Amino acid sequence: MPRSEREFIEHLRRRTSKARGSGVAFGIGDDCAIVKIPYRHEALVTTDFSLEKVHFRREWQSPECIGHRCLARGLSDIAAMGGVPRAAFLSLALPRDTPQSWTDRFFDGLLALAGKHKVKLAGGDTAQSPGGVLADITVLGSVPRGKALLRSGARAGDRIYVTGELGESAAALELLSAGKIRRRDVLPQPRIAVGRWLREKSIASSAIDISDGLSTDLWHICEESGVGAVIEAAAIPIHPSARALSHGLELALNGGEDYELLFTAAQINRIPSRVGGVKITRIGAITRVGSIALLHNGKKRPLLARGWQHFSS
Amino acid sequence: MPRSEREFIEHLRRRTSKARGSGVAFGIGDDCAIVKIPYRHEALVTTDFSLEKVHFRREWQSPECIGHRCLARGLSDIAAMGGVPRAAFLSLALPRDTPQSWTDRFFDGLLALAGKHKVKLAGGDTAQSPGGVLADITVLGSVPRGKALLRSGARAGDRIYVTGELGESAAALELLSAGKIRRRDVLPQPRIAVGRWLREKSIASSAIDISDGLSTDLWHICEESGVGAVIEAAAIPIHPSARALSHGLELALNGGEDYELLFTAAQINRIPSRVGGVKITRIGAITRVGSIALLHNGKKRPLLARGWQHFSS
Repeated sequence: MPRSEREFIEHLRRRTSKARGSGVAFGIGDDCAIVKIPYRHEALVTTDFSLEKVHFRREWQSPECIGHRCLARGLSDIAAMGGVPRAAFLSLALPRDTPQSWTDRFFDGLLALAGKHKVKLAGGDTAQSPGGVLADITVLGSVPRGKALLRSGARAGDRIYVTGELGESAAALELLSAGKIRRRDVLPQPRIAVGRWLREKSIASSAIDISDGLSTDLWHICEESGVGAVIEAAAIPIHPSARALSHGLELALNGGEDYELLFTAAQINRIPSRVGGVKITRIGAITRVGSIALLHNGKKRPLLARGWQHFSS
Repeated sequence: MPRSEREFIEHLRRRTSKARGSGVAFGIGDDCAIVKIPYRHEALVTTDFSLEKVHFRREWQSPECIGHRCLARGLSDIAAMGGVPRAAFLSLALPRDTPQSWTDRFFDGLLALAGKHKVKLAGGDTAQSPGGVLADITVLGSVPRGKALLRSGARAGDRIYVTGELGESAAALELLSAGKIRRRDVLPQPRIAVGRWLREKSIASSAIDISDGLSTDLWHICEESGVGAVIEAAAIPIHPSARALSHGLELALNGGEDYELLFTAAQINRIPSRVGGVKITRIGAITRVGSIALLHNGKKRPLLARGWQHFSS
């Protein structure tokens, strides 16, 4: 574990020299990082906590997985806006007794994902933690001016799509909580390429990442767009590990932290079944009425926002 | 205290509508905030923790003071680069039993400072804290391309200056720790206007903010610039509350969290005694040799970096 800010800076320098660059001119070593934003782009900023015992447990997940998920949260928000991630900033507080090997492996996981998306870890802060590992990731990205995908553009008649499969994180959490498995690493892949494709093709009318759970995130889109929705249960792509459980559909609907994209597109737009190798599935349609319904076994029932609610869960 | 992300968002919306705007087009309500960076500017990013029992104590400081200091840390980093702050992002984890009034007053302090510098609180994250109040502030600013003040430009012969007075935070901390006073609010003012003036006039050869203590922050400048320095003890502007203690000089040299600016300028440049109402004091000179010395009562002794060291103090 770093013993001083200087050592952490040296540590970050050493570790981040591996991550391939990205328009960062200066950074660690000055009071701020300087990041070039391309001409006619605007900046995107997102910050996400990863707190021990709230978002992860060291006894359930490997350090690499915790590092990966810490950055994945931020990258996924950039993906949902159709943006290009440019730099990441990590505030990391560690308990005094954290083994150096744990820290190294946390950075291994975080920097492997950063390298994959050509994002530089350009700065951050450190402290000794008063309790548990505390991380907060900031990701700075950019998007051509006025082109960001928003939550507010869904219109009645639009089709609703999701990337990948849902419920894997929730299924793992349930098995771990019940003591049925001891450790499981789920490594969500932020859908940067799909978000960018949707933005470049001007296809999506709205988008969000599924961090709180499909039901809650769909509710966010409907609220911001002033519309309703109907979802077909049979169409939802449920991850095999959730499908293996009796209530896989509930996990796919309400389990959070899948980091897939949920987006809408006008009926006239043809959406391929895969974009850059990532499966795209149509799961429903936007309606005029301000409620969200689930079609299941021929019956329609209201779909409540039962995903992750910060503070209340 | 907010009961859910939605409520926190509503809370932030309500609270931030008071803060005067700043180029933020969208923000809270989407996955990322969108921030316009002026033409031919580059982005500045800084992140800073404010953790209970590490950076503050609720029993020693008012909620307003804690909120003020949380944002002041980030703004001060932007000031040190000569930048203009554009938007702030707050990740805030609160223990379940935090009174609503505490949270409200924390925001009062933070938003009052934000308003003063026309910075919008444009987003953030929330969580329930596993222990203590945990805050992490990100400030996004901008600076004309290639014009940022860096730590690396000091040259032998340059004069060394500080803004304001030093040692107030350290003096308060000492009195609080010793139980000689029960509460004290120290409200450092980020030197945004001075930093901007130095950058616009192209006067400073290097700059840093005094967050870790004069001795340590001067050491940072010397290290990054590959130079040494001589400081005159009698010239250091010591805050009255530090001067009232027997070792006021030590507090001014090594006490952190003053958030004044330390900068260097070529001998040929005339530096006024005040910039925008803020006192500027010459305290020494940059030397060729790679050591830092203190001239005190006619004697020269090495000045060690004895300010705040993260993790070790």
